[in-house]
Amino acid sequence: MTQDSLTTTLSALADPTRRAILARLSQGQATVNDLAEPFQMSLPAISKHLKVLERAGLISRGRQAQWRPCRLEGAPLKSLAEWLETYRRFWDGSFDRMDDYLKEIQKGDPNGPRN
Amino acid sequence: MTQDSLTTTLSALADPTRRAILARLSQGQATVNDLAEPFQMSLPAISKHLKVLERAGLISRGRQAQWRPCRLEGAPLKSLAEWLETYRRFWDGSFDRMDDYLKEIQKGDPNGPRN
Repeated sequence: MTQDSLTTTLSALADPTRRAILARLSQGQATVNDLAEPFQMSLPAISKHLKVLERAGLISRGRQAQWRPCRLEGAPLKSLAEWLETYRRFWDGSFDRMDDYLKEIQKGDPNGPRN
Repeated sequence: MTQDSLTTTLSALADPTRRAILARLSQGQATVNDLAEPFQMSLPAISKHLKVLERAGLISRGRQAQWRPCRLEGAPLKSLAEWLETYRRFWDGSFDRMDDYLKEIQKGDPNGPRN
């Protein structure tokens, strides 16, 4: 199954443990061992989450065989933020103001704009 | 299983059809019939997606039994945008600048700040 990249990003983020891993990585690079400790998870369980994050491009990993530090990658978050931005008017209040404005026009408010 | 609200939002958004429904609703309210047409989906399939969106608080529905128009609700998108904002430095370039800055400090750059 092919998935669009936004779906892949959102699916990867739709898990509290994976978001907690990203929060940890926002403080700096970390190895699988570093990550496993605070989460009290087994290495295979953490590795599985890291694979999902890596496939989504949300983290990258170093090349050294023994010490493969994980690093947060911002590009997919940027794409998500850009998508979200197209809905901004639904939460920043400008939509309500536009709604009020349209109601005023429909009422034929004499103080409304004249065209 | 209880889910935190960010997980619920992200899970609901991690589906291209549900995001397309939101894009349609960003143009104005619509009924299930309105929504089913462009997507060439059955009413039950659309209804299932609408239930997921409604549970996530991303849409609300009118009360009239026959005509229950769906309306986009911005609050969960706002919470998601706020969460994303905490990662902005990873994509807007300021992180790279901070990284360069820290390297300069570590090198003992004489032009660096003095404390």
